[in-house]
Amino acid sequence: MKKLLPLIVGLMLFTNLAFAQRNTQAPAERYSDQLVAELNQLMRAALASNYAYQQTAYLCNNIGPRLSGSPQANAAVEYVAAEMRKLGLEVKLEKVTVPHWVRGIETGELIEFKGQAKGTTQKLVLTALGGSVATPKEGLTAEVVVVENYDQLEALGRAKVAGKIVLYNAKFDRQLAASGRGLEAYGQAVAYRGAGATRAARLGAVAALNRSAGGAEYRLAHTGGMRYQEGVAKIPAAAVAAEDAELIAYLAAQGPVKLHLTMTPQTLPDAVSYNVIADLKGSEHPEQIVIVSGHLDSWDVGTGALDDASGVAAAMQTANLIKQLGLKPKRTIRVIAWMNEENGLMGGRTYAENHKAEATNHIAAIESDLGASHPLGFHAHASPNALAKLRPASAILQGIGAGLVNVVDGSPEADISPLDAVGVPTFGIWQDSRTYFDYHHTIADTMDKIVPRELAENAAVMAVLAYAIANLPEPLARK
Amino acid sequence: MKKLLPLIVGLMLFTNLAFAQRNTQAPAERYSDQLVAELNQLMRAALASNYAYQQTAYLCNNIGPRLSGSPQANAAVEYVAAEMRKLGLEVKLEKVTVPHWVRGIETGELIEFKGQAKGTTQKLVLTALGGSVATPKEGLTAEVVVVENYDQLEALGRAKVAGKIVLYNAKFDRQLAASGRGLEAYGQAVAYRGAGATRAARLGAVAALNRSAGGAEYRLAHTGGMRYQEGVAKIPAAAVAAEDAELIAYLAAQGPVKLHLTMTPQTLPDAVSYNVIADLKGSEHPEQIVIVSGHLDSWDVGTGALDDASGVAAAMQTANLIKQLGLKPKRTIRVIAWMNEENGLMGGRTYAENHKAEATNHIAAIESDLGASHPLGFHAHASPNALAKLRPASAILQGIGAGLVNVVDGSPEADISPLDAVGVPTFGIWQDSRTYFDYHHTIADTMDKIVPRELAENAAVMAVLAYAIANLPEPLARK
Repeated sequence: MKKLLPLIVGLMLFTNLAFAQRNTQAPAERYSDQLVAELNQLMRAALASNYAYQQTAYLCNNIGPRLSGSPQANAAVEYVAAEMRKLGLEVKLEKVTVPHWVRGIETGELIEFKGQAKGTTQKLVLTALGGSVATPKEGLTAEVVVVENYDQLEALGRAKVAGKIVLYNAKFDRQLAASGRGLEAYGQAVAYRGAGATRAARLGAVAALNRSAGGAEYRLAHTGGMRYQEGVAKIPAAAVAAEDAELIAYLAAQGPVKLHLTMTPQTLPDAVSYNVIADLKGSEHPEQIVIVSGHLDSWDVGTGALDDASGVAAAMQTANLIKQLGLKPKRTIRVIAWMNEENGLMGGRTYAENHKAEATNHIAAIESDLGASHPLGFHAHASPNALAKLRPASAILQGIGAGLVNVVDGSPEADISPLDAVGVPTFGIWQDSRTYFDYHHTIADTMDKIVPRELAENAAVMAVLAYAIANLPEPLARK
Repeated sequence: MKKLLPLIVGLMLFTNLAFAQRNTQAPAERYSDQLVAELNQLMRAALASNYAYQQTAYLCNNIGPRLSGSPQANAAVEYVAAEMRKLGLEVKLEKVTVPHWVRGIETGELIEFKGQAKGTTQKLVLTALGGSVATPKEGLTAEVVVVENYDQLEALGRAKVAGKIVLYNAKFDRQLAASGRGLEAYGQAVAYRGAGATRAARLGAVAALNRSAGGAEYRLAHTGGMRYQEGVAKIPAAAVAAEDAELIAYLAAQGPVKLHLTMTPQTLPDAVSYNVIADLKGSEHPEQIVIVSGHLDSWDVGTGALDDASGVAAAMQTANLIKQLGLKPKRTIRVIAWMNEENGLMGGRTYAENHKAEATNHIAAIESDLGASHPLGFHAHASPNALAKLRPASAILQGIGAGLVNVVDGSPEADISPLDAVGVPTFGIWQDSRTYFDYHHTIADTMDKIVPRELAENAAVMAVLAYAIANLPEPLARK
């Protein structure tokens, strides 16, 4: 999960839009008795199956972290392709050129501060941001300047920032996240991760640290993407655990704090990787495509269970259930395991570019990329007319408490945003995200965070939504 | 906090004993109006003061982790002594010979397992147990054998254990901890930390790992003490995060799992350190002593905020409040910052040995060493008669929801257990421990875990209890 400002805005507008939808939109579709029966069958089968859980476990435990360009990412491509072939799907690997960034050593310690016992340092918990340049091999040492936002940084100016390490001590809003609005809290905090290094470098800083953009209180450093700006010096960038940001801020308020920072990541030449594309052909309109998807790449620190092996597994399960139940989608259900969501979005971009000519044949694109907790329903960027046609599907999903629709103002997920941009209706599974931002992009995003029943519910939402769209009498209206 | 089985038993018996106490014990003491007024004054002042919080912050943030024998432990001794002198207390440093174990590099990775992508490994999160020997410098490599308990280990026998690394995958009982019975959960899990290496070595194992004895789900490794047995090979011992134990167990169920383990801790010659002993002399019976205490040493991974800078700070605050309010305890209030609770208990043992002759002049010993969450009251190992005399103090503390007494069957805290053994009534502050075992002995035991108001409540309990005991007409009855 990377860039979701449209969804953030959507969530903020949720109450009003939901109200609007109820009162002003087209009359709801009535589904055939057969379709209703098949959707119920899919939902029940999803809940009874551990296929999605086992697939997630294999990706996380047997293969491991899957950063773009890594051997594990490529092993995951082969694995998912083989699994889809086992189901009898038509599988293609779509070549994607991806950044190839490799983490190295990363250590930080406070070497000078008030009260310091002679000969001691305070060790920090930190993680290099994806794409960051390295420090010199022997590390760099500088005083830390603590700011809470860009205004404070600018107010300090070059005189007080040049030669220093800037720490952005912007707190993740835990209360907002606990209220179910984690994406907003994340959006606020992540601003300093993406552009912090460049903003600091413009004033002559030698490195940039951000307080982790996450909600946990267990000394976790949250990695994630960052970007440099052409013409501005590239300085090393890392996220420190919230605890360490607090420590530095406490000490810096008492006197100068010097930090020794060593980071040895490498940016290698771009690598070749793949989107896995697996088609379960439609019986009546095989050329019309309904995408179900998650992203196969993950950050390299945990094993990417929540972000996003579980999303890939829900998509795989959609095809598996349809096959196991012997159902016949009228339109093609296309399972996609996207590559490189986390640090480049090259999978989503490459697909949209390669399939430009068939854009209008893409009836819908669905992705799950906000963890695997209980789903409330789905996020939708679609026309009122299209939404009306999905109400019976929501009514069925309400049977597992997943009947809500959150109408958003842009693509609900990152990989499908290039398709969204050309008019394809896009959908995201709407998970309860209260704990997601405690784990994602950390060493703690591991298999044990997946609750089997909840993952099964997610697969149920994806399967029901996709199969309903694939079997409507008319294609879903474009936006 | 180290060894508290007596308290565990006490908690299990709590309901019955509390009932027994209400119905069968001596009539409650009536305190003088002046004493009641002074106790209320102390309680209010504790809640209004940030002294304990600031002292905790200094110990954790300015000094840092304080493992016995480290420069930080010695800096902490000097700091607390100086702070107590500032208050006008009579300060002595009591020499304590302590183990001097120093952590080194510690890494673990799975280098062979089913599904492994070529050229990759899975990195583990682990922490050497305090006192562990090192691996060879280049590490050791062996297959992992997973057991859930000692019975399973013994059933495997030497044939299947020799040459292997044993993983004790004993789950910490999170539900028990969430119900407030964390000590019991800890007691169950910690059995494999203390003796696991020796039990495995007897069957020829080359290293021992235990699943972390803690409740958090954030990939934290929980360190702690372990012991070797004479005549049995000393093998390296470490705790892995719960997530990593799960991963290994998952993979080991599918086929052989090989682990490369590197640990370079050193056991140096014993070091000289100190208990800090600071007396606020009694006005009527200066030779009679009421101890208020916490332990100054901590594990080296976090900064020991909950375990146990906060306990030391509560004891310091007791003296500070009495001084600031100009109160006159009739008996001596003795602040003790114990050294070496975590890996040797040499402070508590040395004190009891040195003060044998004055044992009967020790009227009570109070310690706080179970975190700094809201106190429910205090644990007590004392005679029914003594307990009866403390009921008015509890009635006052009930004003902040800290009026309960948990009668236990042994010393409620470790440092005061040698005094307990010679008949001194002992008391521990009874904190809500539902989250304590998520943090203690981990990198996440840091200052931000302290809620200022709750720490102030802890100091209030210690101050009220100590001052009441110091001012009773008669000394508290011995056990």
